[in-house]
Amino acid sequence: MKKVTVKELIRNGEQFLDQEVQISGWVRKIRSQKSFGFIELNDGSFFNGIQVVFEDNLENFDEISRVSIATSMYVTGTFVKSEGKGQSYEIKATSVEVFQKADLDYPLQNKRHTFEYLRSIAHLRPRTNAFSAVFRVRSLVAYAIHKFFQDQEFVYVHTPIITGSDAEGAGEMFRVTTMDLDNVPKTDKGDIDYKEDFFGKETNLTVSGQLNVETYCAAFRNVYTFGPTFRAENSNTTRHASEFWMIEPEIAFAALEANMDLAEDMVKYIIKYVLENAPEEMEFFNKFVEKGLFDKLNNVLANDFARVTYTEAVDILLKSKKKFEFKVEWGIDLQSEHERFLAEEHFKKPVFVTDYPKDIKAFYMKLNEDGKTVRAMDLLAPGIGEIIGGSQREDNLEELERRMDEVNLPKEDYKFYTDLRKYGSFPHSGYGLGFERMIMYITGMTNIRDVISFPRTPKSAEF
Amino acid sequence: MKKVTVKELIRNGEQFLDQEVQISGWVRKIRSQKSFGFIELNDGSFFNGIQVVFEDNLENFDEISRVSIATSMYVTGTFVKSEGKGQSYEIKATSVEVFQKADLDYPLQNKRHTFEYLRSIAHLRPRTNAFSAVFRVRSLVAYAIHKFFQDQEFVYVHTPIITGSDAEGAGEMFRVTTMDLDNVPKTDKGDIDYKEDFFGKETNLTVSGQLNVETYCAAFRNVYTFGPTFRAENSNTTRHASEFWMIEPEIAFAALEANMDLAEDMVKYIIKYVLENAPEEMEFFNKFVEKGLFDKLNNVLANDFARVTYTEAVDILLKSKKKFEFKVEWGIDLQSEHERFLAEEHFKKPVFVTDYPKDIKAFYMKLNEDGKTVRAMDLLAPGIGEIIGGSQREDNLEELERRMDEVNLPKEDYKFYTDLRKYGSFPHSGYGLGFERMIMYITGMTNIRDVISFPRTPKSAEF
Repeated sequence: MKKVTVKELIRNGEQFLDQEVQISGWVRKIRSQKSFGFIELNDGSFFNGIQVVFEDNLENFDEISRVSIATSMYVTGTFVKSEGKGQSYEIKATSVEVFQKADLDYPLQNKRHTFEYLRSIAHLRPRTNAFSAVFRVRSLVAYAIHKFFQDQEFVYVHTPIITGSDAEGAGEMFRVTTMDLDNVPKTDKGDIDYKEDFFGKETNLTVSGQLNVETYCAAFRNVYTFGPTFRAENSNTTRHASEFWMIEPEIAFAALEANMDLAEDMVKYIIKYVLENAPEEMEFFNKFVEKGLFDKLNNVLANDFARVTYTEAVDILLKSKKKFEFKVEWGIDLQSEHERFLAEEHFKKPVFVTDYPKDIKAFYMKLNEDGKTVRAMDLLAPGIGEIIGGSQREDNLEELERRMDEVNLPKEDYKFYTDLRKYGSFPHSGYGLGFERMIMYITGMTNIRDVISFPRTPKSAEF
Repeated sequence: MKKVTVKELIRNGEQFLDQEVQISGWVRKIRSQKSFGFIELNDGSFFNGIQVVFEDNLENFDEISRVSIATSMYVTGTFVKSEGKGQSYEIKATSVEVFQKADLDYPLQNKRHTFEYLRSIAHLRPRTNAFSAVFRVRSLVAYAIHKFFQDQEFVYVHTPIITGSDAEGAGEMFRVTTMDLDNVPKTDKGDIDYKEDFFGKETNLTVSGQLNVETYCAAFRNVYTFGPTFRAENSNTTRHASEFWMIEPEIAFAALEANMDLAEDMVKYIIKYVLENAPEEMEFFNKFVEKGLFDKLNNVLANDFARVTYTEAVDILLKSKKKFEFKVEWGIDLQSEHERFLAEEHFKKPVFVTDYPKDIKAFYMKLNEDGKTVRAMDLLAPGIGEIIGGSQREDNLEELERRMDEVNLPKEDYKFYTDLRKYGSFPHSGYGLGFERMIMYITGMTNIRDVISFPRTPKSAEF
C-alpha cells in the first residue's frame, strides 16, 4: 500500500491504476445511499479532490455515511478508472478511518458564499475553490519571481523592515515603538524623548527598500528585494492595503532601456510560469472570476510592450478626442482613465511610458538633458493600469544634491545614499512591482483583501 | 565586441579566449608603472575580480594610472591567458572609459578592517571580500529554501507582519501605531483608547507566523512561511537581533518523525546547494573565517542525524560525569553547554532531542500519553547548538483548551486556532528555522550583525 497525494494520482494516473493506495484529507462533499456512497476528498495537494466510493462491506459503513463536510480521514483503496461522469479516476475504498468528525456548524457548507463573508472567516477561506486557487497562484508567483532573478544571478537582499528614514519622502508611515504610551518619556523641553525608545531614535515601518538596495547594487551588480512594505494611509479602497509585499530589482551599468527589458521579461516569465504550473487554477479564474482572462494574458505574452515618452503619450491623449474627466495637459500626473485609455484603447497591450516631468516624480530619478524630464518609466497594462514604476537613478552627485535641496530633503540623513555617487558612481536603474497588484492582474480578483491571507486595512487587523 | 560579466569570463573562459570583450565594474586594486599598469576590476557578478592590463598606447593612459580604488569604468579589450601568477586569464585593454573617479577619502582602502568598523559603514561593506561572500551566500540560502519546499509542492504563505495577537504568549513585542504620542487618545476611564488607533485595536510586530500558517496547512497540506519576525528584547548579544527572518514549514497528516525527516533533508539540501553554487565564497570562509568549516559541513552531510528523547538526553548528560555550570536534572530546560555537549562531544553530529517536559514548551505541542512530555523536537548541531525548534501540534480540541487554560491564554483570542481542531482536525507538525542562525552556521560568521544587511539591535537602527 502506497501513501500518495491526490496530485500524484491525477498527474500520473496510469502509474497507479488498479493498485492499492492510501490518501488522507478532508471531505468536501458526501452523498450516501443505503448500501454505498461517494465522498469527494480533497487532500490539499491539488485544486480538485478525488472521488472515493465506499460500500456497505466496510464495517464502519454507517459511521462513514454520516460524516459531515470538513471531516478528516484516511482512505485506503484501489485506484481505478471511474465509470461515472465528472472524473476519470476514483478510489474504491477498502478501509476508511475517520480521524475527526467535523462539527456540524462548519461555516463552509456547500453553497455559494460572498467574498465579503469569506473575508470574515479568513482562516477557513483557503479551503474554498476560489481562495485555494488564489493562494496557490500567489505562492507560485512568489517563487517564479525568485527563480527569474536567481537564474540570472541576481542577489536577493533583505532590506530592513524597521527603518529610521522615509525612503521617498512620501507615504505615511507606521511608528514602531516600545515606549509606554501611558507615560511617554519627555525631554527637558517637553518634546518626546526618542532617545528613550528601543532604538534610541524615531523608527517606522519601511515604505520601500530601494535606497537601501541601491547600496547592494554597487556591490553585487544585479540585486532585488522582495519583502513586506507598509502604508499608514487611511484609504479604504479595493486597491490599497496597509501591509503588502513589493519586489524591487536594481541593475548596475544599466540605463532605462535595460530596465524596461527586465520588467517586460519578468512580467512575461511570471505569467508563463503560472499558466504552466497552475492550469486548473487558471482555468477556474478564466471561467468564474474574469471571463477573457486567458485572452488578456496571452495578449501580454504575444506582444512586445509598447514604449512611448510621456510627451508622446500626452499628444496621443490630446489627439484622441476622448472626453476625460481630468483635463490632459503636459505636466499633469496621468490619471487612471488616461493610463487605461493608452493601454486598452490606443496600444491594446502593455505600454511603458517614460521620461515624465521631473516635478511629478521622485528626487532620485535621473534628469534628462532637457532639464525638465526624468528617466522614469511606468508600465501600464490593459485591465489594471499602472503595474510597475521605476527609473534610471541620478548618478551625478551634484544633480542629486541639487534635487534633494529642491524638495527639502535633509542631506545629512541620506549620506549613505549620496556616498554611492562619490565612491564609484555608476549608471543604474530599477523598479518596483507591487506583488498583490500582480496577483490581482493574473487571477482577475478585484479586491486586494482577497489576495492577502490575513489583510491589514484601516480599522482591520484580524487573526 | 561582447558585453560580458566577470563570472561569465571565469566560468566559461575558453569560450571567450582571444576575443574582444567589454566589462564594466569597479577598481579594487591598481598598480601602475611608467608604461603599463594592472587593475583588478570587480564587477559584482563574481567573488573575484579580473586583471586588466593597460599600456601607454591608450590615449588616456595617464588618467587611468591615477584612478583610485572604487572608481567605476568600462574596459574593452582582448581576453587572453595570463602569464602572470595568481590568475588564469586577463584582459589586455584596448580602451578604458572612466565613468566616475572615486573620491580619495573612500573608506575601504586596501587594508584590513575590523568587522566592527565595517558595521559602521554597512552601506559599503558588501564591497569587501568577507561581506560579499556573506551576502551572496545569504541570497543563495534563501533561494535554496524556497526551491527545497517548492520542488515538493509546498505552498508559500505570507503570514501577517502586523498582528493583533502574540503567537506563543512569549517574546516581547514592538508596538505598531499611528497615534499622536504627544496626545495619546484616552477613554472616559483614562485608559489608552486603542479604538482610535489605525487598526482600531492594539497591534504589534509578529514574533512567529506559525499559528496563522497552520490555518493554511489545513487547506494546502504542506505549507511554509518565510518572512521577517521581531523581538523587542533588550539583549545585546552576538546571537540576537531585533529583526530577523524565519522559515516555518507546517505539514499535514504528519507526525513528529516526518517533521524530523523534513528538517534533516532541508538542512542537508541547503548546505549542498551553497557548496555547489558558491564554491569561491565557501573556500574563503573555510580559509579565513572558520578553519574546519568544510569538515563541519561535510560531517553534517555524511551522517544521519541522531534522534533521542529528552529523557534519554538527560541520562546521557548525567552519565557523562562532565562538570556543567547548570545542574542537570529531569525537567530543566537544556542550557547551551548541555546542548553542545550532546552534539559535539557525545554524538559528534546533529541530534534531534524530542519529547520535552510539557512545562518548558509551548501550549500547542501535542501531549504524549505519559501526560508529562510533549512531541517537541529541537535540532542541536555541533558548533552552534539549537538551530531548529518544532513539534507535532496538539490536534485534540479538549487537550488544547485544557493546556490554554493552564497557561492562562484567553481562548476567545484563539478561536481561529481552535477552529482548526473543530472542523477537520488532523495530525500535523512543523518547525521554525532562524534564517540568520543558519547563515552563521554555514559561513562561520559569529556575530548576527554581520549576516544582516542593516541590522536592528537595541539602540541601533542605522541606514
